Amino acid sequence: MLIVMATFLGVLSAHAQSPAKMVDLIIFGGTLVTMDANRNIISNGAIAIKKGEIAAIGKSSEILRKYKSRNKINAVGKVVIPGLVNTHTHIPMVLFRGIADDMELQEWLTKYIFPAEARNVDEDFVRVGTRLGLAELIKSGTTTYCDMYYFEDAIAEETAKAGVRAVLGQTLIDFPAPDNKTFADALKYTENFIKKWKNHPLIVPAVAPHAPYTVSRDHLLQARELADKYDVPLIIHLAEAESETEFVKKNHNGLTPVRYVDAIGFFNNKTIAAHVIQVNEEEIEILKKNGVGVAHNPQSNLKLAAGIAPIPTMLKHELRLGLGTDGAASNNDLNLWEEMDTAAKIHKVSTKDPKAVSAEQVFAMATIGGAKALHLESLIGSLEVGKKADIVILDFDSVHQTPMYNIYSHLVYATKASDVNTVIIEGKVVMKQRRLLTLDENAIKKEANLYKQKIVKSLNQKP
Amino acid sequence: MLIVMATFLGVLSAHAQSPAKMVDLIIFGGTLVTMDANRNIISNGAIAIKKGEIAAIGKSSEILRKYKSRNKINAVGKVVIPGLVNTHTHIPMVLFRGIADDMELQEWLTKYIFPAEARNVDEDFVRVGTRLGLAELIKSGTTTYCDMYYFEDAIAEETAKAGVRAVLGQTLIDFPAPDNKTFADALKYTENFIKKWKNHPLIVPAVAPHAPYTVSRDHLLQARELADKYDVPLIIHLAEAESETEFVKKNHNGLTPVRYVDAIGFFNNKTIAAHVIQVNEEEIEILKKNGVGVAHNPQSNLKLAAGIAPIPTMLKHELRLGLGTDGAASNNDLNLWEEMDTAAKIHKVSTKDPKAVSAEQVFAMATIGGAKALHLESLIGSLEVGKKADIVILDFDSVHQTPMYNIYSHLVYATKASDVNTVIIEGKVVMKQRRLLTLDENAIKKEANLYKQKIVKSLNQKP
Repeated sequence: MLIVMATFLGVLSAHAQSPAKMVDLIIFGGTLVTMDANRNIISNGAIAIKKGEIAAIGKSSEILRKYKSRNKINAVGKVVIPGLVNTHTHIPMVLFRGIADDMELQEWLTKYIFPAEARNVDEDFVRVGTRLGLAELIKSGTTTYCDMYYFEDAIAEETAKAGVRAVLGQTLIDFPAPDNKTFADALKYTENFIKKWKNHPLIVPAVAPHAPYTVSRDHLLQARELADKYDVPLIIHLAEAESETEFVKKNHNGLTPVRYVDAIGFFNNKTIAAHVIQVNEEEIEILKKNGVGVAHNPQSNLKLAAGIAPIPTMLKHELRLGLGTDGAASNNDLNLWEEMDTAAKIHKVSTKDPKAVSAEQVFAMATIGGAKALHLESLIGSLEVGKKADIVILDFDSVHQTPMYNIYSHLVYATKASDVNTVIIEGKVVMKQRRLLTLDENAIKKEANLYKQKIVKSLNQKP
Repeated sequence: MLIVMATFLGVLSAHAQSPAKMVDLIIFGGTLVTMDANRNIISNGAIAIKKGEIAAIGKSSEILRKYKSRNKINAVGKVVIPGLVNTHTHIPMVLFRGIADDMELQEWLTKYIFPAEARNVDEDFVRVGTRLGLAELIKSGTTTYCDMYYFEDAIAEETAKAGVRAVLGQTLIDFPAPDNKTFADALKYTENFIKKWKNHPLIVPAVAPHAPYTVSRDHLLQARELADKYDVPLIIHLAEAESETEFVKKNHNGLTPVRYVDAIGFFNNKTIAAHVIQVNEEEIEILKKNGVGVAHNPQSNLKLAAGIAPIPTMLKHELRLGLGTDGAASNNDLNLWEEMDTAAKIHKVSTKDPKAVSAEQVFAMATIGGAKALHLESLIGSLEVGKKADIVILDFDSVHQTPMYNIYSHLVYATKASDVNTVIIEGKVVMKQRRLLTLDENAIKKEANLYKQKIVKSLNQKP
């Protein structure tokens, strides 16, 4: 009788707490670096995921009481972070990784990159390169990337198939490109591309006029018009090399690149500008006023000797500021961990101030800052209820991570891509314990190596 | 009859070729990046190892015909390089990895590093830290390191036990140190340390006066005298921060650090100087004339905002120039791959010349250049007959290494520590397929984590 009574009371008490809700996936036991506005860090934390979104986040004890799931990931001893956001790349260019290094930009472009592109870039090339780049992105913990290349529709198809989130900018340029021979054709292609992908859960189509020195004033404005028509992002390379500033000044009444595009009314409310090195504080204020997202690519900027962007000033003005790798031809990888390490160090020496940019600021740039730069902060960039479940689980017990005093310091200065254990995008596990689940790694490497032979052969041919 | 005849001729012909010689280990099938004077790269190459030395090197077909061994490593598809040389670190400081970052040098030193050292550094600390550091060095492909710390005798014991090669400098400083309270005591300790280790196959003992601003003129000269007496290296921090230059100028008749130590006759024929940032071309010529080895630590120099060393000028003058990580408290790892990547990029932007320092030059700095900086180029730094068998086998087929066009570019810009597969020092395999054979990785991490708790507690105590 006593036993029955206890069971009865037990049921009652469970009812009083309301029954556990079923969700699609629960991650529990890890240290959660949320990157929310309060920078909450939850030890022994858990995340409940439903329909691709974060349904709840809190202490494991609480989440495991309130939610149940057939799929659980034990993250005890691990660190759980928002998926990294790569705000600037040209993903298929991984096939040109290391094709030419350590040379003048003009020599690099005219002797290697342009001929290699002209002779090799077609839709198949773009698909093979995208698959290789996606594998590298996932394996290094990147869940969202922003691209600018040709045949962006093929890139979108491959990206969606792999379950990766992306802002994909179709390139518009005033020269015949591998996909479209005229600006008018490219504009038409871009409009169709936008219509096709506008409502996809993972893909944000975008318009990407190449740069102020490669696209005319009228064409820049046509690009903006198209972006506005469909309310999609507008992506551009801006204020990268000193030679760009000279060119723009010479051709546009002495205006610098930022002042010139501002003067013609180019900036819309979803602009994303890559590099932004050759700017002063007043120009940074112009970017701030226009809500422009900035993609900082420190390693590419060093390697091409473009310069060091004034990041401390941009942080002071609270710009929408993220990190990018640029294309692998000028980096030579898609690894945001190395960009973080470089970003945290380079601005200290350039300003002679070891406090210039902190590890926490840099980690924010790689997550919520990147989300803001892409105008996607309502969806991604932090671990918060209602945001997309784009989540990375990190091993945190490697030799090079031992011992640990400060979690942001360790994320930026000690953690490597090889510490990325599991990757979840829109609630779906795309890498589990370093094994890719949506891509065939061996097939990808094989097809990339075949392409390399073709590319080398093409460069040895007489033009 | 015919068959017998053929067999007889076969035996004859084998004799004519002389029988295969027995060696201890053969590595075959890999691409050998020798770093010899001609920069030979041998595809499908092999190395025969006997008594800790390279007995032969060449095409696999040739080596496998002339040598036999019970131990063979199949390196097909892999890249084989000379073990990396880390020319500057303070190995036990891995226990302070990330203890304090992003602050002024003086605050960092006086609020964190000095108190943490004063309250924690004893022989046991040094042993635990050294074991952790050795595990990290081996896992990232470093086979020789140059150290400067306290209780260097304990560091030597741990290093020899793990089978790692090192130049170990016992620190001399004009303040009470954790191991010796007076300069005289430290000098005596150092002499005993040198006598004990002078003839060890892996350990080169050395004298390490800390810096021109922490050691008096007389004591610098006493340090040199001791180094000369035993013909061992003399290690010093030199021309690191601008504040050092100001201090030395003020106290030594307006002389810069390099000119001052040169003027007092400090340099011997085996000097190793770390950092060497605040120097002009004339001072570089002084270093060249004295055969001084230079340890370039780009990541530490950026993080502490010390400056960017004039590496292109040093390369022009063909200095003995290597790469170092510095201690993990200011880096925060012992990873030479990231130092290579940074070294190859940072000098491009600082000189505005993308050709400033090539990938091949940087890879040389991490191998044969480092050997020269440590005055050990007759023993290590390249894959050549008669040199010590310090060899690293790299996986070269990861996603982030695909595809491959130029091997030096790939080593410097794309390869990571996680691609290090197997490590051999003095002919002995110390890591096989990423498993450490001379160190217990789990025990090391456990004892390091216990130390961390002790260190945190000590910092929270009132002084």
